[in-house]
Amino acid sequence: MNWRPTYLYEVEHVGAAKTIKKSYFDIGVQDIRSKRSYLCSALISYPTPILTELLIKYFGFLHIAQKGKETVVLREKECIAFDVPQNHAEQQADLLVAADYRGHLSHGMNRLEFYLNDLSKKATDGAAVAKVLKESPATAWVDGCNGLGAVIGNFCMDLAIEKAKTVGVGWVCAKNCTHYGIAAWYPLRAIKEGFVGISMANTSPLMTPTRAKKAAIGTNPLAVGVPAGNGHFLLDMATTAVALGKIEIQRRKGENLPAGWALDSEGLPTIDTDVALRKPSLMPLGGFELNSGYKGYGNVKKCYSRGLYNKFKPYTVGGTLFVH
Amino acid sequence: MNWRPTYLYEVEHVGAAKTIKKSYFDIGVQDIRSKRSYLCSALISYPTPILTELLIKYFGFLHIAQKGKETVVLREKECIAFDVPQNHAEQQADLLVAADYRGHLSHGMNRLEFYLNDLSKKATDGAAVAKVLKESPATAWVDGCNGLGAVIGNFCMDLAIEKAKTVGVGWVCAKNCTHYGIAAWYPLRAIKEGFVGISMANTSPLMTPTRAKKAAIGTNPLAVGVPAGNGHFLLDMATTAVALGKIEIQRRKGENLPAGWALDSEGLPTIDTDVALRKPSLMPLGGFELNSGYKGYGNVKKCYSRGLYNKFKPYTVGGTLFVH
Repeated sequence: MNWRPTYLYEVEHVGAAKTIKKSYFDIGVQDIRSKRSYLCSALISYPTPILTELLIKYFGFLHIAQKGKETVVLREKECIAFDVPQNHAEQQADLLVAADYRGHLSHGMNRLEFYLNDLSKKATDGAAVAKVLKESPATAWVDGCNGLGAVIGNFCMDLAIEKAKTVGVGWVCAKNCTHYGIAAWYPLRAIKEGFVGISMANTSPLMTPTRAKKAAIGTNPLAVGVPAGNGHFLLDMATTAVALGKIEIQRRKGENLPAGWALDSEGLPTIDTDVALRKPSLMPLGGFELNSGYKGYGNVKKCYSRGLYNKFKPYTVGGTLFVH
Repeated sequence: MNWRPTYLYEVEHVGAAKTIKKSYFDIGVQDIRSKRSYLCSALISYPTPILTELLIKYFGFLHIAQKGKETVVLREKECIAFDVPQNHAEQQADLLVAADYRGHLSHGMNRLEFYLNDLSKKATDGAAVAKVLKESPATAWVDGCNGLGAVIGNFCMDLAIEKAKTVGVGWVCAKNCTHYGIAAWYPLRAIKEGFVGISMANTSPLMTPTRAKKAAIGTNPLAVGVPAGNGHFLLDMATTAVALGKIEIQRRKGENLPAGWALDSEGLPTIDTDVALRKPSLMPLGGFELNSGYKGYGNVKKCYSRGLYNKFKPYTVGGTLFVH
């Protein structure tokens, strides 16, 4: 019952990976503490002896090795152990690596530290399994029991797929979930079975509604995936103009923000990254009211609405999953 | 079998209605031809003898009377007859008047001329009823047979509600539909039954995808409605930054467009209303790529994707309706 995932993935040098190289490889060693979570992502794509050494030193639980030019083996040090069954750890690891692989660096290995922290504080119960509280042929209401995000999310999507196979649609809502990773992960699961997949979640408050001064609701992501002849269509988006990570990246680049991304503490537009990150107040997709920002705000409300059964509590995530 | 709807509605002098008064009552008589469709909307809220007379003269088929201060009777002249059953005409009329009543002037009586034109050209078959082509307990695929938008839409939503009552979800897709009016009309129908309702449609090409030069896809509206304790939440939005009607209104006011609404024929941003209306090229919600316009574009694709069963043809609308 140890957190000891082992995974072997091919890493292609595609657009996103090249961006990592440019953005993170020139970070000086003196910056390594504050940037350490990003280094995980960088390392998966471009492992080098120096980075490996630094990660082992500062993270304390990672061992990296390269196998050929395009393949990476990432194995966790055995000294860190939580009460996480191997099968759960693997599900979570699969999601994190897939996020990096797809270029969603903010939701990949970058999140591992965050998850391990939640496990150590017992905010996440790594051994928890989901419970079905109520169901009909096409729907279910699930208690996530604060299990690992991917484990509960996979359970919900798999249940939705099963229902869809029987009656045409499966719609599953969950409460007491933890961070569920990239929203796209779940529609991808539906696509593999030939279904359309939808996934939505609430988040902790970061978005300031149109005409408001303070952040009141989440960046509530939504994802839709549709199988197609030669691949698939996949949308995975925050309903804010941008995710917080994009503002962090602007700061790292030493560039101002475009108007329409963030507000200051008075609810006025700001282009200053420091102001925007001090107390995040993100604008909805569309930005200003004149550019229909209220539509992005409406989409967030939609994510809440569809999770009607969910009893929200701060910093937990309710997932709504659907398969057609 | 005549198109002869008679409806009696209470009209409150709420925000939207006051806006009508301000916006349209100062249009000079010399403008009446180009503005005539808007006068219909104005007239429903504020009938006056002079407007009534002008409408009868230029529209040729409307007769308006006021009954008390808050109530309006609108009766169509009997000389215009199409092969539309009374029940179908009433469904369509209910939707149009509801749109005006809710402040969606572009989709209210403003559309009547458009619908009558389609009936006269046989592009719409006013007597057509929907056919179920394929179904499962939670889903159905419907042929709209080019019937009146509201008639086919109501059929689909009612079928979805019926399925939701049995298995928890109903998801109905339709092909060969005509313009289905305000998207919100259908979730409102679901709300009345205590369900969450979703409605989506494609439209003729008006939106220019991110990084493209020409309009290629629709303004694809989506609507979500959720019953709540003291009312309901209702989102009804185009997935473009704004609907075309808002650009028309800017021109009427003699004001430029905000950046992020429209492009010129070269795919470059424009704030000129004449340029924007000459060959409409609307930007997706979010506007520029820097402000995540691709997310609005993604949402449009989503509307298409959910209507997978739909065989699109130009200028027909496929509706996707859902009840949970």
